[in-house]
Amino acid sequence: NCHGGEHLSPERKRQLEAICEKIATPGKGITATDEGPGTIGDRFAKVGVENTEEHRRVYRQMLYETPGVNNYLSAAILDPETLHQKDDEGVLFPRALEQRGIICGVKPHLKVYELPGALGDTVMQGLDSLAMRLREYKEAGAKFAKWRSPLQISRYSPTKAAIEANMRDLARFALICQEEGLVPMVEPDIIMKGDHDLETAVAVNVEVQTNLYKAMLEHGVYMEGALLKTNLVNPGLSCDTEYMVEEIAVANLMTLRRVTPVAIKGVNFLSGGQSLEQAAARLNALNKVKQVKGSCPWNLSFSWSWALQAPLLRLCEGKGGKLPLKEMSELYLKELAIASAAAQGKYEERESSLR
Amino acid sequence: NCHGGEHLSPERKRQLEAICEKIATPGKGITATDEGPGTIGDRFAKVGVENTEEHRRVYRQMLYETPGVNNYLSAAILDPETLHQKDDEGVLFPRALEQRGIICGVKPHLKVYELPGALGDTVMQGLDSLAMRLREYKEAGAKFAKWRSPLQISRYSPTKAAIEANMRDLARFALICQEEGLVPMVEPDIIMKGDHDLETAVAVNVEVQTNLYKAMLEHGVYMEGALLKTNLVNPGLSCDTEYMVEEIAVANLMTLRRVTPVAIKGVNFLSGGQSLEQAAARLNALNKVKQVKGSCPWNLSFSWSWALQAPLLRLCEGKGGKLPLKEMSELYLKELAIASAAAQGKYEERESSLR
Amino acid sequence: NCHGGEHLSPERKRQLEAICEKIATPGKGITATDEGPGTIGDRFAKVGVENTEEHRRVYRQMLYETPGVNNYLSAAILDPETLHQKDDEGVLFPRALEQRGIICGVKPHLKVYELPGALGDTVMQGLDSLAMRLREYKEAGAKFAKWRSPLQISRYSPTKAAIEANMRDLARFALICQEEGLVPMVEPDIIMKGDHDLETAVAVNVEVQTNLYKAMLEHGVYMEGALLKTNLVNPGLSCDTEYMVEEIAVANLMTLRRVTPVAIKGVNFLSGGQSLEQAAARLNALNKVKQVKGSCPWNLSFSWSWALQAPLLRLCEGKGGKLPLKEMSELYLKELAIASAAAQGKYEERESSLR
Amino acid sequence: NCHGGEHLSPERKRQLEAICEKIATPGKGITATDEGPGTIGDRFAKVGVENTEEHRRVYRQMLYETPGVNNYLSAAILDPETLHQKDDEGVLFPRALEQRGIICGVKPHLKVYELPGALGDTVMQGLDSLAMRLREYKEAGAKFAKWRSPLQISRYSPTKAAIEANMRDLARFALICQEEGLVPMVEPDIIMKGDHDLETAVAVNVEVQTNLYKAMLEHGVYMEGALLKTNLVNPGLSCDTEYMVEEIAVANLMTLRRVTPVAIKGVNFLSGGQSLEQAAARLNALNKVKQVKGSCPWNLSFSWSWALQAPLLRLCEGKGGKLPLKEMSELYLKELAIASAAAQGKYEERESSLR
Repeated sequence: NCHGGEHLSPERKRQLEAICEKIATPGKGITATDEGPGTIGDRFAKVGVENTEEHRRVYRQMLYETPGVNNYLSAAILDPETLHQKDDEGVLFPRALEQRGIICGVKPHLKVYELPGALGDTVMQGLDSLAMRLREYKEAGAKFAKWRSPLQISRYSPTKAAIEANMRDLARFALICQEEGLVPMVEPDIIMKGDHDLETAVAVNVEVQTNLYKAMLEHGVYMEGALLKTNLVNPGLSCDTEYMVEEIAVANLMTLRRVTPVAIKGVNFLSGGQSLEQAAARLNALNKVKQVKGSCPWNLSFSWSWALQAPLLRLCEGKGGKLPLKEMSELYLKELAIASAAAQGKYEERESSLR
Repeated sequence: NCHGGEHLSPERKRQLEAICEKIATPGKGITATDEGPGTIGDRFAKVGVENTEEHRRVYRQMLYETPGVNNYLSAAILDPETLHQKDDEGVLFPRALEQRGIICGVKPHLKVYELPGALGDTVMQGLDSLAMRLREYKEAGAKFAKWRSPLQISRYSPTKAAIEANMRDLARFALICQEEGLVPMVEPDIIMKGDHDLETAVAVNVEVQTNLYKAMLEHGVYMEGALLKTNLVNPGLSCDTEYMVEEIAVANLMTLRRVTPVAIKGVNFLSGGQSLEQAAARLNALNKVKQVKGSCPWNLSFSWSWALQAPLLRLCEGKGGKLPLKEMSELYLKELAIASAAAQGKYEERESSLR
Repeated sequence: NCHGGEHLSPERKRQLEAICEKIATPGKGITATDEGPGTIGDRFAKVGVENTEEHRRVYRQMLYETPGVNNYLSAAILDPETLHQKDDEGVLFPRALEQRGIICGVKPHLKVYELPGALGDTVMQGLDSLAMRLREYKEAGAKFAKWRSPLQISRYSPTKAAIEANMRDLARFALICQEEGLVPMVEPDIIMKGDHDLETAVAVNVEVQTNLYKAMLEHGVYMEGALLKTNLVNPGLSCDTEYMVEEIAVANLMTLRRVTPVAIKGVNFLSGGQSLEQAAARLNALNKVKQVKGSCPWNLSFSWSWALQAPLLRLCEGKGGKLPLKEMSELYLKELAIASAAAQGKYEERESSLR
Repeated sequence: NCHGGEHLSPERKRQLEAICEKIATPGKGITATDEGPGTIGDRFAKVGVENTEEHRRVYRQMLYETPGVNNYLSAAILDPETLHQKDDEGVLFPRALEQRGIICGVKPHLKVYELPGALGDTVMQGLDSLAMRLREYKEAGAKFAKWRSPLQISRYSPTKAAIEANMRDLARFALICQEEGLVPMVEPDIIMKGDHDLETAVAVNVEVQTNLYKAMLEHGVYMEGALLKTNLVNPGLSCDTEYMVEEIAVANLMTLRRVTPVAIKGVNFLSGGQSLEQAAARLNALNKVKQVKGSCPWNLSFSWSWALQAPLLRLCEGKGGKLPLKEMSELYLKELAIASAAAQGKYEERESSLR
């Protein structure tokens, strides 16, 4: 119990820790491109692009190989399919990322399952044969793996049973990852739906995370070799109260300080439906508050999918099903510059512009 | 939390409860025939029988259709493969069992996975897509499903993390089963390996089961629609102390009384490496103690695989790879008579004989 | 962990178990007279009786020594003060009760404390120096001790923290009792205030009790040497739905079966503000359902204070501050006859009458 | 749940936080003088000093009022008795400390109680009427309160039940403190007895502390208004392996990083039987490692009783029962200089000398 990975060799621990440190490089973040073929298909469909493997390939190639992205990205999260795709040069994407100094991660989990009688609470599936799959992904070049466990806030949710189920599953996932030589990136995601206020969000996030870390410790996870991806602590989408971005920043810092272990080097926030501007403004404010208040030993950065990709995909509209890759890559670079600035508390909304 | 299946319709609850009641018929037990193709293959190999689907089929047909077995059997547990096999008359086994008044169950779990750094503690796999598989099994005629979670006793085991992981997985399994219309038979199996004494076995069994029921309640499982299969509480195989069969019986009754909910109608003990004589003697003693001491509201019966099948398979030795089905079925009937007697506390070792 | 009192001598275990068995005598119940001097003072004040030690003494004498009470009572719970009072013959009450075959218990806990920030959730105080006090009470003749842990149902209550705090305190209380040679009677009391329906009451009672027994087991309590006093599972006082007494009975039986260990021989329900008629009708219905449905290994009886005493105290009204002890004792006997009948499922509302 | 003190007024939170910040002043620590009259009596007896109230008073006066102590001390912990004693000028000690800029704390807990059947595991007593006592102590000038929960490491200890009992009691203590306006200083103390190695010590400390913080969060404690006093993570006294002071330092830093919330501003280590030199060397090494490795947001200082007082009391030997206060105060100042240097990682064993 709580042995902190004593079954791992010193070398394995060093490797895991080195990957964590690299991902937590100040000013750099993660491009999350792990949508499954179905999810990306929905996104393509809305802008008239056909969901073919080739479309997915060239689109992701742009996300990984646009010159300059490695100034802003320390890592990318891939769907298993992408691990085996090659860029135009015939280089497998994990290798192409590595050449650019971007660490390649993978999403090994499957689909959520709604727990019967649990009023919408779910568990994430994918623990069966996980070790085997991870071995294959590692072989293909993945250095870390990310597992998302979404939870909701409502009158009765998340229930204690749902919190414990999801957080213990995350801990088991983390334990298996480290055994297979991959850094686990645990992702408790408290979704924004709901009318809860910011204070409730803080309380639920703290409750969820204290269960997470206790479970990880009790499972013997090597905390120094794990990373956190999580939601920004936010009021619910239909919350009546309005909060200033600074209030949200303070709430996030408070949450981290109350519960997140220092051994975890980096926290990469998901966008979860926020626009790039919104997500950047909040991440930026959080990093500003961090600089002012101190006592925040974590690198606080981004791991965004939707916030980065939504504007890119909008460029496809009216293009007759084609991906305007050049335009997209130009915009993408600007977005990453904003994201990187936000990760350093240097994002100025007025000056920075996507247009 | 702890709503006890309020998401299930009254009719669903009645159906589940009716299945439980039928399985818990006094004097009847379960023939456990859910060895996977690999496991049965090992057993066949030892007695020179080739592990073909046809061999498995005729062997199981004997186990299900030997005339008279329904006097002793209320249920049978099948490997998924067997659900789709037919008897010589072309009747699918689930239907053949039903015709004989024997309830058909299935083993939906997959293989154990050894938790890294946990000194041998494991978890059972199979929760991914479980609902889907159960739907298919139900379609094929299964009325209940059994999930085995083995645990070991050693200086450090089972750890708290392993107990909680396994018992919560069992609870999730049970919840999913009931949603899909199958009775969950939860099977915490504390294996006999080890040098622990009977008192330690009681303590560990109680600890494991209190976690199990709390997890089931917190998941909202309908307890009246669930059954327990478990090990007899036994000293470890290499325990120095010898115990009389009555002491073991008392320890088992004490364990049940301390922790098992009355809502669970039946407990079917696994054999777990015990010989038929040993398992029968202990089950018999337990039922005798029950009759004397009262306050034991559970039907206490058997769910044996090895104890019943080992003597049958020995009959194959020297038969040139053939299954002597007639001899086997005769012996099988005698075994079931012993098992049934033990389930009623009427087994007299001297009189009953397999020869 | 979960060793079930292995630190206790076999003789100690037998003694504790014998006390439990005696208290759980079918058809007999408990007169709860453990109101502190302040509480009984309030009751006296309402009917114009002065709260003197002598008044308390003669009043309790009547409750213990009315000829015939031992036909209905197996035990009495005393306030510590009463342990040291004598009857008119100069016999100490514990001895006087013993002479009548009534087992003497004590209430060793102190006052409730409202947990800050817990919206009304409380903990019961009295664990400091409990062993020392119990030693003194045992010396004075107490054979068992009762600890009440009230909990409320509201939108946010009882919180997980409050449930765990109270149930673990009860477990610690039980452990200390048994070490000092007294039977612990654990009393989780989910009060009737609130608008919750019967289904919610079942869920909360199950949740509370599963925490209780798990905590008791983990503390090493000898379950066979402990008793349960608890509330009848009831809809909230301001619940909109009306339930028939049979529905309430079924809900209670269901709750017990889902969670209460068989090792606990007796359950004595508190009245908690119910009138004698109401409490008797519900206890009676519960025992009738028990007889019909079986699988209810517990003696289900009463441990009433208010239900029995309210009608007695009303007799004092207009008596100029005097206690009409003769009238009171006559009515008390009738009440106990009703209570005893209810404890056997033989109470017929129409026939039985207090007038 | 996990509301983080939302029942406290903003002003109350600010006050609590301000006290924490003051106590966590870099380079300053705590003089722990909260031995009860009995404990200090034992210490006095060994050096021939009579245990009178006056002796205790002048001794403590020296500990609080030696000119210059406020250069090294941010706080002092007092036994309740001392709160009401006055110095030679007739100034109550809490006021005298305040005048010197030293924050006055109190020890409100009572004696440990050994849990029956728990192989030596204990709980600390004192929760009954705690709020009332704290109110009185606050009135007398106490600004914080310290609660010690000792735990041992042995083959079976600390049990899960003992860890949870003690850590939840600490959480309840903390909640009550903050309600009464005092900063809680929680003190899980894993004693040095035993033959466990450093790795085991890390694991147990992490397990204990993860339970502590989860319990505090679930009780609604305002983490920013609480402090930690704890043992240095050390190998057991009879451990076979020898560790360099740097290894111990690294183990301590690792433990803190894995589990201690950043919201807690300061950690004051107890001496727990270590000599001043040993405790100083280890605290110093820890602070040096902190400076090198960073990511250690806590002020790491001392809260020593025995380490500081043992050398002082030795000065009494052969003095005919007199307290050589002048000599003592001179030595005390030197000791505090060492302690303060260690709290800054500036202690050089060779140069610093008590002689």
